[in-house]
Amino acid sequence: MPNKPVSLSIDPRLRINHGRRFAFGPGKAELLEKIERTGSISEAAKAMGMSYMRAWTLVKSLDRDFAEPLVNKSRGGSNRGGATLSKTGRRVLSIYREMEAASKAAIHAAGKRLGRLLKP
Amino acid sequence: MPNKPVSLSIDPRLRINHGRRFAFGPGKAELLEKIERTGSISEAAKAMGMSYMRAWTLVKSLDRDFAEPLVNKSRGGSNRGGATLSKTGRRVLSIYREMEAASKAAIHAAGKRLGRLLKP
Repeated sequence: MPNKPVSLSIDPRLRINHGRRFAFGPGKAELLEKIERTGSISEAAKAMGMSYMRAWTLVKSLDRDFAEPLVNKSRGGSNRGGATLSKTGRRVLSIYREMEAASKAAIHAAGKRLGRLLKP
Repeated sequence: MPNKPVSLSIDPRLRINHGRRFAFGPGKAELLEKIERTGSISEAAKAMGMSYMRAWTLVKSLDRDFAEPLVNKSRGGSNRGGATLSKTGRRVLSIYREMEAASKAAIHAAGKRLGRLLKP
């Protein structure tokens, strides 16, 4: 007798590889989102509990992998100045969120079947 | 002008949470698959470059989260004896692989759009 479904959540962590190298995934998506919201790499890093250097390294790796910059860094006096998403940056984030939603929708029914096999 | 798509692969790492706790994901799926193939937790651990203790802990966590055991442990003299997947174990693995395939199919088109934004 199948059990009643339990409180189940499925988190599709989509890792996008460019050739052999990891290019984009949930952490970079969250960083872009927080840069968009805070207008600053430094504030975005803080919001994620990440060092500024780590966030900066992630932004540099995006510059390396994507044809156009995803983040517009301000050319102001301090290298901790403002930052915004470029049009391409917003597009990448939007496609990625669309992929997550499509993945969730596609696995929903099977996920419920799996959930019935868990302890109530 | 969009770039030619580059060699892109997308790895949907589906993390299944039971209430607040992580219950099943790519590592446990691979462990089940290797137990099925090798007939032994110890050999499965070796094939994954994982300690026997770590593999055993993962199997115990499956016993804790699922209503029925996913792995039938042999009752022989050694606790490193044979192991096979139970019917429920095979079912969980099969549903999980089905979910991965459904996720990949669902994100394929958007993934190609994202791929065009990467460097060639």
